[in-house]
Amino acid sequence: MAFKFQINPDIRFIHDEALLAKADACRPVIHARAVRPRRLVCLQQDPGKYMGWGVCEDERKSVREDERERAREDERGSAREDERRVEALPERVLRRGDRVILDFGRHCVGHFSVDIRKSGCAMDAPLYLRVRLAEVCAELAEEPKAYEGWLSRSWIQEEYLHLDVLPARLELPRRYSFRFVELTVIDTSPKWGVTFANPQAECLSAAEEEKQAIPLPADERLRAICEVSVRTLAECMQDVFEDGPKRDRRLWLGDLRLQALANYATFDNAALVKRCLYLFAAMATEDGRLPACVFTSQAYEPDDTFLFDYSLFFISALHDYLQVHEDPELLRDLYPVCVRQMNAAWESVGADGALHCGEDCPVFIDWSNDFNKDTAGQAVLIYVLRQFLTLGQMAGDPACAPGQMTGNPASGQMAGVPNLALWQTRLDRLTAYAMSELFDADRHLFVSGPDRELNAASQVWMVLANVAGEAENRRIMEETVKNFFPVRGIATPYMYHHIAEALFAAGLKTEALDLIRAYWGGMIDLGADTFWESYQPDMPDYSPYGSTSVLSYCHAWSCTPVYLLRRYAPEVFA
Amino acid sequence: MAFKFQINPDIRFIHDEALLAKADACRPVIHARAVRPRRLVCLQQDPGKYMGWGVCEDERKSVREDERERAREDERGSAREDERRVEALPERVLRRGDRVILDFGRHCVGHFSVDIRKSGCAMDAPLYLRVRLAEVCAELAEEPKAYEGWLSRSWIQEEYLHLDVLPARLELPRRYSFRFVELTVIDTSPKWGVTFANPQAECLSAAEEEKQAIPLPADERLRAICEVSVRTLAECMQDVFEDGPKRDRRLWLGDLRLQALANYATFDNAALVKRCLYLFAAMATEDGRLPACVFTSQAYEPDDTFLFDYSLFFISALHDYLQVHEDPELLRDLYPVCVRQMNAAWESVGADGALHCGEDCPVFIDWSNDFNKDTAGQAVLIYVLRQFLTLGQMAGDPACAPGQMTGNPASGQMAGVPNLALWQTRLDRLTAYAMSELFDADRHLFVSGPDRELNAASQVWMVLANVAGEAENRRIMEETVKNFFPVRGIATPYMYHHIAEALFAAGLKTEALDLIRAYWGGMIDLGADTFWESYQPDMPDYSPYGSTSVLSYCHAWSCTPVYLLRRYAPEVFA
Repeated sequence: MAFKFQINPDIRFIHDEALLAKADACRPVIHARAVRPRRLVCLQQDPGKYMGWGVCEDERKSVREDERERAREDERGSAREDERRVEALPERVLRRGDRVILDFGRHCVGHFSVDIRKSGCAMDAPLYLRVRLAEVCAELAEEPKAYEGWLSRSWIQEEYLHLDVLPARLELPRRYSFRFVELTVIDTSPKWGVTFANPQAECLSAAEEEKQAIPLPADERLRAICEVSVRTLAECMQDVFEDGPKRDRRLWLGDLRLQALANYATFDNAALVKRCLYLFAAMATEDGRLPACVFTSQAYEPDDTFLFDYSLFFISALHDYLQVHEDPELLRDLYPVCVRQMNAAWESVGADGALHCGEDCPVFIDWSNDFNKDTAGQAVLIYVLRQFLTLGQMAGDPACAPGQMTGNPASGQMAGVPNLALWQTRLDRLTAYAMSELFDADRHLFVSGPDRELNAASQVWMVLANVAGEAENRRIMEETVKNFFPVRGIATPYMYHHIAEALFAAGLKTEALDLIRAYWGGMIDLGADTFWESYQPDMPDYSPYGSTSVLSYCHAWSCTPVYLLRRYAPEVFA
Repeated sequence: MAFKFQINPDIRFIHDEALLAKADACRPVIHARAVRPRRLVCLQQDPGKYMGWGVCEDERKSVREDERERAREDERGSAREDERRVEALPERVLRRGDRVILDFGRHCVGHFSVDIRKSGCAMDAPLYLRVRLAEVCAELAEEPKAYEGWLSRSWIQEEYLHLDVLPARLELPRRYSFRFVELTVIDTSPKWGVTFANPQAECLSAAEEEKQAIPLPADERLRAICEVSVRTLAECMQDVFEDGPKRDRRLWLGDLRLQALANYATFDNAALVKRCLYLFAAMATEDGRLPACVFTSQAYEPDDTFLFDYSLFFISALHDYLQVHEDPELLRDLYPVCVRQMNAAWESVGADGALHCGEDCPVFIDWSNDFNKDTAGQAVLIYVLRQFLTLGQMAGDPACAPGQMTGNPASGQMAGVPNLALWQTRLDRLTAYAMSELFDADRHLFVSGPDRELNAASQVWMVLANVAGEAENRRIMEETVKNFFPVRGIATPYMYHHIAEALFAAGLKTEALDLIRAYWGGMIDLGADTFWESYQPDMPDYSPYGSTSVLSYCHAWSCTPVYLLRRYAPEVFA
């Protein structure tokens, strides 16, 4: 099983009310816009699309016998082509077992509503209705009852509803993430049917789509990738940067770091990033460590899940923010939190400069546990430590009043100016260990773990950490392409992001662009409107959860192509 | 198929606002009382109970393997008997697939609510919960998904609910009819479970149970039958006399007539009967006919279903009311409606005095269509016409100002004093035809239809209509007992009521009491808390709807034993 739940009931967290208040001061305005469906569709088998499922407007191609039968009847009678147009929806009377699929033509995050009227005799029974909402049409081909994955089945977007009174406007109170809405009349009564009218999605986002006016690449494929990238980001921008608006709807540090980068390249909603940084800072453990994610939809509540790299990425996220926006107060408030993460991380480093992560705080890097992550973890620590030193220099700068720096005295950290010399020494020790013990200079590749395993993740992160120097970085990524491309066994756009960024960083722009075209473009070829949580080109139906039903098809960590292109290939926007 | 829907879209109805206002003036106070479950139970197979299902408190006897397994684990560990007590419910953590069945120990009509708390880590997914509510435990043994009956599946009392925020008090907004509530946790997440606390039913009725203080029979079986009879009636007394609080929840004339009789013998809520009479009177067709039922839960709306006997029973219901309560205004208002029903009925009578009902307004008598109903229909008309004459005499009485009688001039009915002589002549013609053409004096039984069929219903209704005279009535019922007992192929307590009443009317009190003990007592033996819509002793799982899932297990037309006993055997209450 690729996915493992951490349960740490004994860890105690603090809630820093002052920092929570600052988070709340940055709470975003949520913009709402009404969207109407574009067409009525049927499910049809389509081997060229994700999971083999597509949609069509022609009921003759439906997978459902009753829909094909109705289409045949239509052909025998008068031409009723028009009935299948969305405008004709109110004239279509649905009875027991009938269904209609609304295609909104775009991904929506928000609320669904529709008018329901009775057609026929007096309403002698309630209406029993099933509503399913799906980001990709393949979700509608799956039967939720058959779900046996290990994530909660409660994430599958379906509702069973009894309506005792018609006509009514059905306004589903919950928020959904969807392009398709399937309305199935489980039952009316033999004496009457129902019609639907004025279906509408009230789409919500903290991103102001109208204001987002970055130029788009002329290249058609890159333009499509950018558009889907921006849409994915916008859909995840809610009260916080959610990882996925379908599931889990919460704030993960690893996702936040990448969302923030894409955000600077597009909407540049600085307050939303600040809000998320403050939320993490406000909910550390008693000994100062940050959890991998926090819940914000009910109360502010930290998750008891810890990932070595995710905790460190708080430093990255603050560093990246301050590269774009000057904010001495933010630095003053959050630099101490960074110090605590670094101190905590350093506890896992041996005297020789080797990182040894424990089981209780593993390195994530990617969902896959089929490769050794020791070297990638070492590289992440180096990568972040460099950013930490940058922050330290900024924090020591007179612009940031030193007297207000409040490092944790217990951790050995001096109050006031951070001890940058100490951390520089530690950085040297980490890199020295990496070069002397983990780098195979003959093969121009890093090894990982006791078996000196070769894998792509080690190279990617060591290049991003810039351990071997510019020329060697290029050579390493050339060897990576030679040895590990096409990438196999990796399903997360999160890992693909780092592969692409490492290619760019090493100067292999052509290879980076090819990867973006093939990987994110591959999702679009399969029908994506937004980029997915998971896409493994060599096994497109992979899910770490035991089922694709609960996968998120609009996922934060997949939104980065627009950032990568804007930063490393700005000329494509010309 | 024993059940047939009428669909008459072309029939136009009037809405008499003045009469609707009088109906509203009689709108009852609905009394609410809180009821808590008595115990936690498991389903177990029990051949002695309805459909072979019973409940027990011992999980070792559960039909579910997981519950038996938990019970075995309990035995291996410390004695956790207490955990199965309802008081221990809040300590029981439920996770994916777990369920608990609450037994309220009595039939409830009303709202269900329960506290739900999370137990474990932060709530990283919604709770997905299924709530099923059942009048009899056998309902819980059926899988609603498998339902293929022809009544709407929407009547099956189940809800699927997502709860995004916990803790919460779940207050289901719909009204249900239940003794058992099954809570099934479809899913939480591996990181947490849920507990339930403070389950409660808010029970609703227009009957003031505290004020109902009729004495009960000393005989244990008759006492139980009376208690269940009164409970059945009380549960159906809502905003109108509903036929069944689970299904259809509406006002049928045939049920109203019997409910009203039981009501006079117990709660004697006169206003509620008046309300229902006014509702029917207010929603006749353009030509004055009354539908078999009206809807009142949304708007006041007549059903487009017509039954010959049900329309006539409006006259019976008014007659019965005025036997108990003096109300000249009611008579003035409603006598013209009675005249219209009689006139309409007379259109189906030939010159020879034979009734010939058409397909568009059939005689009901009973669900079964396996016997000929011509003679029973003729008898119903005679039965009601006698009551009509009584009403006419009352209407002609100076106490009821004649000038205000507003018969329909178009029907040949004189305004003012009703033409009682004419109707007496017609009555004679009907009875003469019955005795000369339908009565087999040698066999002391009435025949029915072109094949001169012998059946119980003909005898029962001819005796109730008192066509043959007192002595012959007794003989007829003796022959009925000889030829047709034990009754077969009859599933409605409605028909059984008339059989029992005919036995009493004919002086066969012992046989009547035996039938009540055997038939209504039989339901109690099978586990009834309230009397059912359907019970066929020779085929207990019979349903005219293709499934027992949608049967109503608390049904108006089954509540009459208390009336029968109070009227015909008052000595049992001594």
